[in-house]
Order: sequence, then C-alpha cells, then structure tokens
Amino acid sequence: MGAEFTVRPIGVVRSPQDKMSQGGWARIESVIELEPQYAGGLAGLGEFSHVIVVFALDRAQFELAEHLTRQPRGRADAPRLGVFAQRTKYRPNPLAVTTVELLGVEGHRVRVRGLDALDGTPVLDIKPYIPMFDRAESPRVPAWVDAIMDGYF
Amino acid sequence: MGAEFTVRPIGVVRSPQDKMSQGGWARIESVIELEPQYAGGLAGLGEFSHVIVVFALDRAQFELAEHLTRQPRGRADAPRLGVFAQRTKYRPNPLAVTTVELLGVEGHRVRVRGLDALDGTPVLDIKPYIPMFDRAESPRVPAWVDAIMDGYF
Repeated sequence: MGAEFTVRPIGVVRSPQDKMSQGGWARIESVIELEPQYAGGLAGLGEFSHVIVVFALDRAQFELAEHLTRQPRGRADAPRLGVFAQRTKYRPNPLAVTTVELLGVEGHRVRVRGLDALDGTPVLDIKPYIPMFDRAESPRVPAWVDAIMDGYF
Repeated sequence: MGAEFTVRPIGVVRSPQDKMSQGGWARIESVIELEPQYAGGLAGLGEFSHVIVVFALDRAQFELAEHLTRQPRGRADAPRLGVFAQRTKYRPNPLAVTTVELLGVEGHRVRVRGLDALDGTPVLDIKPYIPMFDRAESPRVPAWVDAIMDGYF
C-alpha cells in the first residue's frame, strides 16, 4: 500500500467563518497566508481564475466503525453512503479539496472566494485549476446530492 | 500554521504505466485497489460519473531552493513559475489531485480512466466529483498552459 508519510502545513486560512456553519460558503472571502518562505511559489498564479485548495480537516477524527458509511450531513432522509461517495470531513486521511475563485495574490497572501474551511485551517497545497486535470464534462451525480448539499455553498 | 500529521495510504494504483511517461494519460485505464477494510466506504460511489483521486507523489523529492520556481515540464520556452502555479510533482507536500472518469466499482477495486499515476502509486483518498465543489464555470488559464500541457492527457 505504500509507506505512511508526514505532511506539514504550508500556511493557514484566515476566514470570517470560525465555527461549523450551515452553509453559504460561496460568498465567503478568505485569505490563505502562506509561510513567507513559500511566497516565491506563487509566481504566475495570478493569471488563473480559479485554484484548488488542499487543506487539512484538522477538527475531525475518523473512526472506521463509525464513519466508514454514514448519512451525508447527518440527514435521516439520505441513504447510508460510503465515506468515498461523499465529501464528509470524517475521512481516513483528513484531506479536503475545494475549487475556489482566485481574487488576488499579494506577497505570501492569496485571496479566494468560496473556500469551505474554518478560520485557522491548515493549508497543505495550492494548485492552479487547469480544466484538463480538473474539469469533468457532463458529470453525472446521484439525485440525492442536490438535496443533501442544498445551501452548502 | 498548524501541526504536521501523518497520512497513510488507503490503497494503491494498478496501472499499465510503470515509468515516467510523455503523456497520453486520458486513455489509460487503471484500477485503484483499496485495503479490504475500506471496501464498505465505496457504497454509493458507482452512481457518480467521475471521481477525484488524491494520491501521493512518492517518487518526487521537493527541495525548496531547486523547486520553488521552475519551468513547467522542464521546457525552456516556458516562463519560470512558482510551484503553486503549476502541477509539477515537486511540491512541498507530495499530494496530487486528478479528476478521472469512473468506470466501475467491484468489491474493494475502483476502475478509472485518465489517472496520471504510475503503477504502485499510493492512494490517499477518493472523493465523488460534485460540481459545486469541483467545477469552475468559465475558468481562465494563462496562454502558456495549453502549450505546456499539450499531449499530457
């Protein structure tokens, strides 16, 4: 399966959202503050309209017996689904991936809109959004997704 | 910046590609073999057309002085760009994110098409592709992206 390894945050999310929210993330503007040593790594990023943020789900603890299958967002009207069929924060590896709008890059700070991460969340990577890696044409999702995620963004 | 933490592979990529390739990934069919204990976590995934695979760039070693900025894919005709403005495998955290077509789920195996990971690559997470998290409408990328990535997928 390959060896385990250590990941180290490269920065932190500064967000007006500091507690678990019911949603509305699409409007939230956040700043990702990188460690100053990584500022040079942002060269050229400003030419992209969107970025993918990989961040740590540092306030969730995965327990196999409890979280391997789960009703998304705790909703009793949803089918019980596997962890890999949903975006729950309770995952074997606490890694989140969200595509956000890039508002600006200034020094070691990256301003974004639509990041569903609480204030203080450790950031592990920033990647430019490149359609050939990231964009599915005509994606199909189950009917329950829209109901479950209503209002999240 | 938050504490470092350990990630443990949940499975491995089985791919006909076993050495660094010049591209053509879009046609490659791979199987992600999860550890059997995670098989239940795939319940419901088959209803999605695409998944996001988070995998370890386990054959790349990031050196700040060498890799903070870099010409993408080593091309002399490209501008020197920051690591966070490209998809290079030399990253502070060796985490890759690629959206792929889901072909099927059987037991603890997930068949996909378009995964740019070599045979034996450790897999860290599988997420359902959900447009509200993952799809940028009208994304803008710099002109050099198409030239640099020509033939990769």
